[in-house]
Amino acid sequence: MSLVDKLKWRYATKKFDNTQKIASEKLDYILEATQLAPSSLGLQPYRILVVEDAAIREQLKEASHGQTQITDASQLIVFAVENNLNEEFGKKYIDNVAAIRNVPRESLAGFEGMVLGTINGRSKEELKTWSQKQAYIALGVLIAAASEQSVDICPMEGFDVARYNDILNLTEKGLTATVIATVGYRASDDAYAQLAKVRRAKEELFIHV
Amino acid sequence: MSLVDKLKWRYATKKFDNTQKIASEKLDYILEATQLAPSSLGLQPYRILVVEDAAIREQLKEASHGQTQITDASQLIVFAVENNLNEEFGKKYIDNVAAIRNVPRESLAGFEGMVLGTINGRSKEELKTWSQKQAYIALGVLIAAASEQSVDICPMEGFDVARYNDILNLTEKGLTATVIATVGYRASDDAYAQLAKVRRAKEELFIHV
Repeated sequence: MSLVDKLKWRYATKKFDNTQKIASEKLDYILEATQLAPSSLGLQPYRILVVEDAAIREQLKEASHGQTQITDASQLIVFAVENNLNEEFGKKYIDNVAAIRNVPRESLAGFEGMVLGTINGRSKEELKTWSQKQAYIALGVLIAAASEQSVDICPMEGFDVARYNDILNLTEKGLTATVIATVGYRASDDAYAQLAKVRRAKEELFIHV
Repeated sequence: MSLVDKLKWRYATKKFDNTQKIASEKLDYILEATQLAPSSLGLQPYRILVVEDAAIREQLKEASHGQTQITDASQLIVFAVENNLNEEFGKKYIDNVAAIRNVPRESLAGFEGMVLGTINGRSKEELKTWSQKQAYIALGVLIAAASEQSVDICPMEGFDVARYNDILNLTEKGLTATVIATVGYRASDDAYAQLAKVRRAKEELFIHV
């Protein structure tokens, strides 16, 4: 099956089979794909929590309108953006570029200037929104990779950010929860699996110029 | 090659081979994958422009710091969010759900209430940011699908939104340019293709709970 076929197969799973876990190599593969997602300037201004702990998921479910995917899925993935996307973060990123590419740090001065200029030129609120958008790219890649692996995925925005930050100690880690997704396997009786997929028609979505 | 291998192969292409076009069936496939990207409540509050016209791309290049990908790539993809994500848009969406699923519109009253409540509960600015995030999910899926098809893709934020809106007549279409990507094939002498990929290390990106 092609990726398109897999994307047709997937749907926003409402009921997961809570007896099925994703094999660890498969989960690693899906996470590696997500790690490879591009981001503006390459900054990846977010972290990705992979939550399995049952007691914590029980608390998170209560902070997610009681949606059962949170506890029944194999894992809950939480994208959390960096609260401190500042000069220090930018410089550490340039350190990483220099180390991975094995080039003198000085040779990256022009790029560093662009990175720090971009960071310093934005307000705290703009940096947050910008970081969130980058996390959503990674979510898109996660959706594709999970689907490719025949793993069900339900992206979700309906959760209490403040309570997530509290339950997962995100604020003290310098993070803010942004978007979540549950991954695992659909329950055989999830009625939503049978519904026709609704998407804007090609002529309502694409404009050819 | 798996999707992970393809994502390792891809990079932000700086120089495209301007003699190579993506075969039309392949482009259709990549666009179909993008069409299948999920969005919050299924609303897809964006449109996707597929720009091929040379003269228009020349103007857009000038509005993109002269970056040559704009004109040299096979196509330029422009994600543009809906400026009028309002009750009418929500109701039209419910019409579409009823038609595609062949169910009485009244049976969707609960869902419609949720959709309209969500739209009405957000400010114009919040709706814009929310819509942009959804477009970024689609961008993530586009990146995965292009890579799967061995098509190079360079997502870009560095462009003048107002000028894009003007050149592409987006405002009169009720749209605002949000993020772009060029798709095609890398030039054989693009030095960037040789650079080691920089990503946050697993232990710097993932937090297991």
